[in-house]
Amino acid sequence: MSEYPFLKGHGTENDFVLLPDHDGTVHGDLDPARVARLCDRRAGIGGDGVLRVVRTEAYAAAREHADPREAEWFMDYRNSDGSLSEMCGNGVRVFARHLLEEGLVEPGRPIPVGTRAGVKVIEVDGDRITVDMGRPRLLGDTEVAVGPARWAATHVDMGNPHAVAFLGDGESLAADGPVGALAEEPAYDRAVYPHGVNVEFVQRRGAGHVAMRVHERGSGETRSCGTGACAVAVATALADGRRPDASDTGEAGDATYRIDLPGGTLEISWTADDRVLMTGPAVVVARGTTAL
Amino acid sequence: MSEYPFLKGHGTENDFVLLPDHDGTVHGDLDPARVARLCDRRAGIGGDGVLRVVRTEAYAAAREHADPREAEWFMDYRNSDGSLSEMCGNGVRVFARHLLEEGLVEPGRPIPVGTRAGVKVIEVDGDRITVDMGRPRLLGDTEVAVGPARWAATHVDMGNPHAVAFLGDGESLAADGPVGALAEEPAYDRAVYPHGVNVEFVQRRGAGHVAMRVHERGSGETRSCGTGACAVAVATALADGRRPDASDTGEAGDATYRIDLPGGTLEISWTADDRVLMTGPAVVVARGTTAL
Repeated sequence: MSEYPFLKGHGTENDFVLLPDHDGTVHGDLDPARVARLCDRRAGIGGDGVLRVVRTEAYAAAREHADPREAEWFMDYRNSDGSLSEMCGNGVRVFARHLLEEGLVEPGRPIPVGTRAGVKVIEVDGDRITVDMGRPRLLGDTEVAVGPARWAATHVDMGNPHAVAFLGDGESLAADGPVGALAEEPAYDRAVYPHGVNVEFVQRRGAGHVAMRVHERGSGETRSCGTGACAVAVATALADGRRPDASDTGEAGDATYRIDLPGGTLEISWTADDRVLMTGPAVVVARGTTAL
Repeated sequence: MSEYPFLKGHGTENDFVLLPDHDGTVHGDLDPARVARLCDRRAGIGGDGVLRVVRTEAYAAAREHADPREAEWFMDYRNSDGSLSEMCGNGVRVFARHLLEEGLVEPGRPIPVGTRAGVKVIEVDGDRITVDMGRPRLLGDTEVAVGPARWAATHVDMGNPHAVAFLGDGESLAADGPVGALAEEPAYDRAVYPHGVNVEFVQRRGAGHVAMRVHERGSGETRSCGTGACAVAVATALADGRRPDASDTGEAGDATYRIDLPGGTLEISWTADDRVLMTGPAVVVARGTTAL
C-alpha cells in the first residue's frame, strides 16, 4: 500500500488518529489490522482509536445509521484494537474541530456528524465544543471497593454502564489515597453489572465543581472518559438535589458542573429536557502521511 | 511558532520523534518543554525520545563531541522529559535509516554519526543495521530479587549499569512466572549499584539464542533496551565459556547471540577485540508537520 494521509488530535488527552478518506476510496471498509497498527503507541503512530473521515453518502455502512442529507460527514470510529464502536464524546469533538479547520463545514453553524449511534449535532464556540450525549438512565444505588476501602456508588447508564463513587471528606483522590494507583479493576456487584462497569471516583472541589478519576472497563485508568464525566455530573446533581426536571426544587433549570479529569476539564450540563451536554476542548496537533 | 517537520520511527519498538533541522535554524538549542510536548503520548505525537537531525558544523554543542569533517550529521538525542542523553543504540539505527532514506548520506558505505558519546559508525545492510556499542566492563557477581524469588546476576557495565539474571530450568519469563508483571523495580544491592540499575531477566531458547525482559531504571519495563541486550549477550557468553578473547577456549572469535525482546529481535556480537556490536532493524513509519 502506498502512503496515505493522517492527522493526530486529542480531546482532554483522549487521543485519535484521523484518516481523511472523503470518498471512501483510500481505505474501503478499513482493515482492523491497519487500525491496530496505526494505534500502536510504539510501532505505529499511537492513539486510543481511529476516526475515519468519510462522506456518509460514500460509505454503505454509514448510510445504515445516518441520512446523508442530514449529515454530510460520518465519523467511522474504531477502537485501538480495530473493533467497531458506536460513538465517542471526546472523539466527536476532535472530528468537528478537524472538519472546521479543513473548511469541510460552514463556520458558525451547528455541525451534524453521522455516527453509528445516529446523527450528533456539534456546536463550536471557539475552544468550547459541545455535544449532546443523550439521556441518562438512573439505575439506583450500588457499591464499589478498592482493596479494603468501600464506597456507596450511583448507577448511571449513558449508553454504557457507570458506577459513580463520592470520596468522603478528607479522602484524597491521589494515587497515595484510598483509591490508589487504579492498576487493578475496582470491585463491583456483578449482579448489577454483568457486562462490567466504568468506575468513577469523585472529589468535591467547590460549588458546581468536582474532580474525578476513572477506571474504564477493558482499558484501565484513562486520562479522560466523556461518558464517565457525564455520569459524574448526573450523580452529583442527584446528590445535590438539583434534578433539572424541577422534581427536587420545583424550579426547572440546567444543572451544570465543571469536571476536572487527569487529561483536562469538561463542563457537563444536565438539561431540563433530560439531555446531557458535554462541552470541552479539542485540538489537532500533527498531520502527515504514513504507509502503516 | 509555525509548523515544522517531524518523522516518527522505531527500532525494536523503542520509538522516536525525528526533527529534521539541518542547519539548526528551526529549533536552535531545542527547548526541553517542546521535547516533552512532542513525546507526550496523548497530547503530543509520542515517543521515548527525540532525535534532532542537525549538521555537526551547524551546532556548537555538537562540535564539542564530534569533528564535522569526520561526521557530517549529529544525533541530538533528548529523553522524553527533555533532558539530554549521550547515546541510544536503538535510536542511532533509526537515525541512520532516516539519513539513508532521505539521501543525506551515500548508500553502501559506513555512516559516521556524531553523538554526545563521540562519533559512532553505523553499517547498514538491508534490514540489518549495526552499531558498535563499545567495550563492556565486567564487574562480577551480584543478586536480584522480585518478591520472594531471588536470582544470581552478572554485573555488566555498558556505559550504564546492568544486572543480568538467568532464569532456572522450567522458570517462565512470562508475566505469570516468577518475574511477574515487572510493575515494581526489582530488588538489588544498593552498595553495588548506588545510582540504580537496569535489570535483565534471561531465558535460554537454544544454542546462541536467548529471550529477555528488562526493567529500566527510571522507566519501568520497556519493549527494548539496546545496552541491556548487549549486557545480556556478554553475560551469556561468560556463562557459556565463550569469552571472545580466547581466555576460555584458547580460540579467539566473536561470541554472537540472538536476543529476543518484547519489541523485536537483536543480534549481539562480542568481538575478539572486546567490542560489542548490535545489529537490528529500524523503520520510519510516518512523516508530517506539527506546531507542538
